[in-house]
Amino acid sequence: MRYLITFSYDGTLYNGYQKQPNKNTIQDKIEEALYKITNKKITIHSSGRTDSKVHAINQKAHFDLDKEYDLYKLQKGINSLIPNDIYIKDIKVVKDNFHARFNVKKKIYIYKLNVGIYNPIDRNYIYQYNKELDVNKMIEASNYLLGEHNFKAFTKTDITKEDYIRTIYKINIKEKNNIITIEFIGNGFLRYMVRNMVGTLISVGENKLNPKDIIHILKSEDRRFASKTANPEGLYLKDVKY
Amino acid sequence: MRYLITFSYDGTLYNGYQKQPNKNTIQDKIEEALYKITNKKITIHSSGRTDSKVHAINQKAHFDLDKEYDLYKLQKGINSLIPNDIYIKDIKVVKDNFHARFNVKKKIYIYKLNVGIYNPIDRNYIYQYNKELDVNKMIEASNYLLGEHNFKAFTKTDITKEDYIRTIYKINIKEKNNIITIEFIGNGFLRYMVRNMVGTLISVGENKLNPKDIIHILKSEDRRFASKTANPEGLYLKDVKY
Repeated sequence: MRYLITFSYDGTLYNGYQKQPNKNTIQDKIEEALYKITNKKITIHSSGRTDSKVHAINQKAHFDLDKEYDLYKLQKGINSLIPNDIYIKDIKVVKDNFHARFNVKKKIYIYKLNVGIYNPIDRNYIYQYNKELDVNKMIEASNYLLGEHNFKAFTKTDITKEDYIRTIYKINIKEKNNIITIEFIGNGFLRYMVRNMVGTLISVGENKLNPKDIIHILKSEDRRFASKTANPEGLYLKDVKY
Repeated sequence: MRYLITFSYDGTLYNGYQKQPNKNTIQDKIEEALYKITNKKITIHSSGRTDSKVHAINQKAHFDLDKEYDLYKLQKGINSLIPNDIYIKDIKVVKDNFHARFNVKKKIYIYKLNVGIYNPIDRNYIYQYNKELDVNKMIEASNYLLGEHNFKAFTKTDITKEDYIRTIYKINIKEKNNIITIEFIGNGFLRYMVRNMVGTLISVGENKLNPKDIIHILKSEDRRFASKTANPEGLYLKDVKY
């Protein structure tokens, strides 16, 4: 029987979502809880990884258990066995051919940055940029990222990877109380793609790049032309749609 | 020369503001930085203590240095020597008879609680109550706390203390996206007073107490009649006015 979980986490203390030898990961914590409940090694398959210190509001993952569990009790059981910086918000049964990664239709990320004075209370949850940015220029630049593009300039190039084409449906940028929130809605995102787009939008907001430079960066398909990767702590996986 | 600093901190990892033997406190961190700068033991005098895990947006403290420092460099110097969960937002010179505690005219605290589902990302910054509350009843009850009262029922009784009279000028309660924020403006607050008032307002919101019970609790001057102290992580010292 295949189960789909929706879960949130504070990524601050983790080496990212995905299991790696001798690292502290979100996947490990949930799999350890499932091992305690079922006494079997269960692998969970998420919608995708998130990097070290990145947060999730609604991450999704599926896994198979060989019997039917009461959903409420299973959810409560997992939550009682994982640390309090991870929380299973929902659990449901899905079809056996459902796949939490392959079936993704849309992913939504948000990135938060503080353009006001340093705030120690938010330091792990909002990137403390602490300087002014020209938000209107950033909005103008973001329009050039919309649609289907080869995003090779905005990701870590990997010899095994052939497809760098992704579609961005929408980018919403708003500023309130010195916090800029950038929302990205797309059919999928390459590794570091959101943070590299944010880094490049910051360069535009600093007037170090012109909004139209985005066109050339995309065309270059060369990572050296996009700006530096924005810090991880401002990034949240907000939602995954199937 | 007397200096007044305005500073913010994330109280999560501290045993409160005030210096205590073998404890990790905010006061220690700032005094250690001042020792490194001046090579002298400097005592800082704050507007009042905050308890373990309680945060501050604008805490204030004064201290004396025997020479005149460039304010910008002094601020930068202290900030470079304290951990990144404390931040000196402002520093200025004040009169020699100014006192950060005795001269307080108003203090503003806010308390945040989540009445929606558990959010691991906010767990150290918003009290995760995670059940519904009747906010209108809480607002009604808060009106009975306004004005000058003996708040002995809402504090830790201490044989050395004689004055339990305080004035609350205003209490603002609002709910947005399942987060209730309660703001208290008063001429001063006794130990645990804000958290005990919040705990009691929660009892009203749970319909375990009636709004008018506040009158009897105040009159009783007996801690046993107020409800349990609300968790520290939801509390912020927002501002201090002189």
